[in-house]
Parts: sequence; structure tokens; C-alpha cells
Amino acid sequence: MSTARYDVVGIGNAIVDVIARAEEDFLIGHGMHKGGMQLIDEARAHVIYDEMGPAIEISGGSAANTIVGVASFGARAAFVGKAKDDELGQTFAHDIRAAGVAFTTPLAADGPATGRCYILVTPDGERTMNTYLGAAQHLAPEDVEAELIAASAITYLEGYLWDPHNAKEAFRRAAALAHVAERLVALSLSDAFCVDRWRDEFRDLVRGGTVDVLFANEAELKSLYQTADFATAAAALRQEARLAVVTRSEQGCVVVNSGGIEPVAAFPAERVVDTTGAGDLFAAGFLVGLARAASHETAARLGALAAAEVIGHLGARPATSLKALAAQHGLAP
Amino acid sequence: MSTARYDVVGIGNAIVDVIARAEEDFLIGHGMHKGGMQLIDEARAHVIYDEMGPAIEISGGSAANTIVGVASFGARAAFVGKAKDDELGQTFAHDIRAAGVAFTTPLAADGPATGRCYILVTPDGERTMNTYLGAAQHLAPEDVEAELIAASAITYLEGYLWDPHNAKEAFRRAAALAHVAERLVALSLSDAFCVDRWRDEFRDLVRGGTVDVLFANEAELKSLYQTADFATAAAALRQEARLAVVTRSEQGCVVVNSGGIEPVAAFPAERVVDTTGAGDLFAAGFLVGLARAASHETAARLGALAAAEVIGHLGARPATSLKALAAQHGLAP
Repeated sequence: MSTARYDVVGIGNAIVDVIARAEEDFLIGHGMHKGGMQLIDEARAHVIYDEMGPAIEISGGSAANTIVGVASFGARAAFVGKAKDDELGQTFAHDIRAAGVAFTTPLAADGPATGRCYILVTPDGERTMNTYLGAAQHLAPEDVEAELIAASAITYLEGYLWDPHNAKEAFRRAAALAHVAERLVALSLSDAFCVDRWRDEFRDLVRGGTVDVLFANEAELKSLYQTADFATAAAALRQEARLAVVTRSEQGCVVVNSGGIEPVAAFPAERVVDTTGAGDLFAAGFLVGLARAASHETAARLGALAAAEVIGHLGARPATSLKALAAQHGLAP
Repeated sequence: MSTARYDVVGIGNAIVDVIARAEEDFLIGHGMHKGGMQLIDEARAHVIYDEMGPAIEISGGSAANTIVGVASFGARAAFVGKAKDDELGQTFAHDIRAAGVAFTTPLAADGPATGRCYILVTPDGERTMNTYLGAAQHLAPEDVEAELIAASAITYLEGYLWDPHNAKEAFRRAAALAHVAERLVALSLSDAFCVDRWRDEFRDLVRGGTVDVLFANEAELKSLYQTADFATAAAALRQEARLAVVTRSEQGCVVVNSGGIEPVAAFPAERVVDTTGAGDLFAAGFLVGLARAASHETAARLGALAAAEVIGHLGARPATSLKALAAQHGLAP
């Protein structure tokens, strides 16, 4: 195993977020699951957009947010994902490159528009997401370059990739390439409803060793093991996963491996403006710690710090240098 | 003069803001005037965008921001401005309509892309703007509907309209139509460099009575009268203007008319994140007060309140209901 050129390469849906504030009534009136992510078609995208309030556009995408977080910590990061060569696609490409991330996946010349996620943020700061995948669903196995995966210490995949058929194949190819190169494969379960759609396959990935590091939040973990009891789910996870981290919002997280189940505290958030990206940014910090061979506790603290930063403002990407923030907290990765 | 259907109709450049944080060095390296607005061509737009950091997109445009502020106060508002029928143009149209503003100017089917303003926000919260006018420069006199102007108590125009030739004609037509209908015409001077380009014409508009209400900040006023002394400039203004308001950042503003020069305090801003839109939102509050026949002092307080809100976050449009905010401060317009 050679020295890695990148600490983390992320593979995920290339998405631009369209964020508006909304009241609870809006979610109810539109049949949205508060706090969840729903896939929508183009027609529904038009209906939602027409009826939602004034919005702001910020590049998003779960793994893309994580990778931008990794770069913000000063680590070396790359991203693979499919956007179209339209205004939003150019915006996505600009933003991720301007964040210091290597992004070379060609923009699609035709086909559906760049994917977007209509995010409604309620007054409590919770976000409810409606995703039109658009061009993202055409991420293909050939977009995953063998050299890039081999050159990255960790290949990080989002569970949302399991929704579009081609992307799932790209995911499998990336995981196989990473293991051939003796690199680590990490997966985020993304969303409890996503787990509901792909439970058996996700469990197979973890049990079969396709995934070395698993990220989940409490709802996703409970969905994975179909139990309402956290301790039961965590115990089941410990049987199946090599290394897993389960985030529990303001209760912090637990790091799960053969050694046990270790809780790590959250960073107190000054204010919760918009929870979008909390899980993505937690993963960023943990992955940076892992890539730099920090202890699991330090890695989890880095994750908690990044999550606390991102929920303090609108949008799922850091608004300040996470490297500087970590240094302020004596947590230089 | 019949009852007005709209309190204010605004006419201005339809622009989407592309906002990134930047260090002072970036401005110096790119020859930008800190705090100012520079017009740029497409080639320079590409250079700036390629080199600036990750950005967020929020609908902007000076008069458009003002009009959204007017609607946020619960007043009836309309906007006239030219965007193209592309992704950014659709974004502009969605955002202004979702804010409750009547916007019926047809999107251009061809020609240059929707205008955008690349805004660099330095750590002190100051914004430096680079505007590619794009489709906005094709606002034409025929886009100004006589009925709309006649149905609006105040027609509000931005000085930036003086830059594109067609838009200037649209401006003149709107002012003439408003006066035929016995309505008020208001003008914002927009930017000190803009005043520098069009000083004589702007002074003619004020002296000749084309403009009934003038908005300027201190720098614009000094540029208009080519003096470094505020008192000298204010005295000159009092000779020429029927009613004018000059904003002075944290020093508040002065209301100038034949009765004298009356200072009104600013609202203390909790924090200054991004000064973009401070002048635009001040104008919104003042216009609402004027349309509702409030005293000049109350109108100026409404303006100061809206300005304090908008500088507390990124972007030049209110992030909360100004009507509710005004009520909290006992200032229901």
C-alpha cells in the first residue's frame, strides 16, 4: 500500500440545495415527512418550487458536503459525482473546486438537469428534504477512476447512491477497487427512509466486509435493525460492523467496534439555525481523524465540532475554516 | 388621483447575487474598489468567478431588494426588471414572486444570460460588488406598463438604471407616467461611482423635479456635490431636493426638506455579517412609511430597522418578516 495522495475521496449525488424557510403547515399540506429526504420527480419539483418561499441556492449533496468539510480541515480531498453542464452544474463544480476539492467527473452534455434538493427549514431549525436527482442518477461505473480510488486512503460513499441504479454499480466498483488497493471503505446510511428501502443490502455490505466504517444516526440505526430500542440496535451493530459511529444529535455519538461501545459528547451548539449537513459534517471530522490516525475519541470530537459549526447557519457546508476552528479547540487533526 | 393598487413599484436591474467571503488581499489582487460596485463584462465575470471561493446564490438587484423589503412590511409591491428565461432568471422570478411581489416583466427568450453580481464579503462585513448586467441591460421602455405605474403610489427607481442605455429610457418613461398620474417618483443614487458617471444628469433629475424623493448615502451625496464636507453637501441638497434622506451607517440618517435637516438615529445592529442591501432595505422602510403617510421620523425608523435586519446575515433580502419586526418595535407602518 503506497502513500495516499488523497485522505478521502467521496462519491455521491451532485446536488444543489434550494433552501427556504417554511412553517410546519407547509410540510403537512404537501405530505412531507419532517426531517426526512424524499425523492421527487420533475413535475413534483415544479409544484414544490412554485409554492415554497424565497430561496437561496447553496451547493449540497451529502457526500459532497462531507468532502468539502474534509478539505476545510486542511486534508486532501476528491469528489466523484454527476452534474449536467448547465448553470446549476457549473455552480456545483465551481463551489466544490473553490473549496479545494479535486473534482474531475465530466459534466453531462445532455440528459436531465443538474440535481437539486428543495429544503424546507422549519422554525425549530429542522430540515425536510425533497430531492430531484436529475443528472446525478446517471453517475456510471466508468466515472469511478481506478487510479483515484487507489490513491485515496478512504473511499467514502453515501447511502443515497443506492437509489439510482447506475450509481449503485459505481458504488460497488469503487468499494472493490478500494479494497484491491488495501484502502478503507466508509458508508453513511444517509436517511432512515433510505435504509427502509435498502435495509437488506446495506446489512450485507456491513456484514460482508464491503464497508469498513459505517456512519449512521440513531433513526437510521433503528431502521437498519428494525427496533425502537437504541441499546438493542447498538448491540446488533457491534456484532456486524468493524467500526461504526452512531450520531445522536445533542447527546453526542457512540463509537462502536469490537472493543465496545464508547460514547463521545457533542459540542454545544450556540444556536441551531438549520440542521442540514449535521451528519455530513460529523462524518467529515471523523474521517479526517481516521485518515490522520487520531484516536476514535479525537476523530469523534472533530466530527462533533464540524457538526456544531454547520448547524449554526443556513446551508450544509462550513462557513468558516474547520482547520482554524479545530486549532482553536486544541484539536488540530 | 385614484386609490393606489400598489404602495410602491420598483424598477431596476434584475440580478442574482453570487456571494463569497474573501480576504482584503483578494480585492487588491483583482483591482476592486472595496465597498463599491463595478460593472464587468462576461470575460471578467468568468475570471472573478473562477478565482473566488465557494459561493451562495441569492436573488438581488438594488431596487428588487427594496421592493421585497416593502412586501415584507406587508405593503403592496410590484417590480419591473429584465431577466432571461434561464435557470438564474427563473430563480429571480420565483424569489421575488414568492416574496409577495407582483412581477410580470416577460423573461427574455434570447440574448445575454440573466445578470449577476459577484459579491465579495470581507471579514469586516463590507461588500464589494462586480456586476455583469446581462439581460438586465435590455430592459426597454415598453416593459414599463402605463397602467402599473399609474396604479402605484410611488415609483421607485435605482440609479444603476442609468448605466444601460435602454433602461435609462425606461426610467424616463416611468417617471413621466407617474407624474401624469399624480404619483410620486423616488430615486436611489445607488453607488458613489455611479454618481461619478452620471452626476450632472442626476442633479438635473432632482433640480428639475423629475425626482420627488431622493435616497443617498454619505459617499453618494458627497460625490453628487463634489465635496468632502457632509454639511456643505447636505446644505446644497436642501436647496435642490424636495425631500431627501441621506443614510450614514451607524450614525443613522438625516431627512432633508425645506423644513430643515432632521437627524434620525440608527437601530443598533447586533452584528454586522454582510452590509449588502443596507441602503436598499433602508429605502424599503422609508417608502412604506411614506406610502402610509407616517411622519418622516417614523419612516426613517422603519428604514433603519430594516437595514439593521439585513446586515445581520448574508444576502440583501430580509430573512424574517419586517412587518412582525416592526410590530415588535412598536413601529407598525
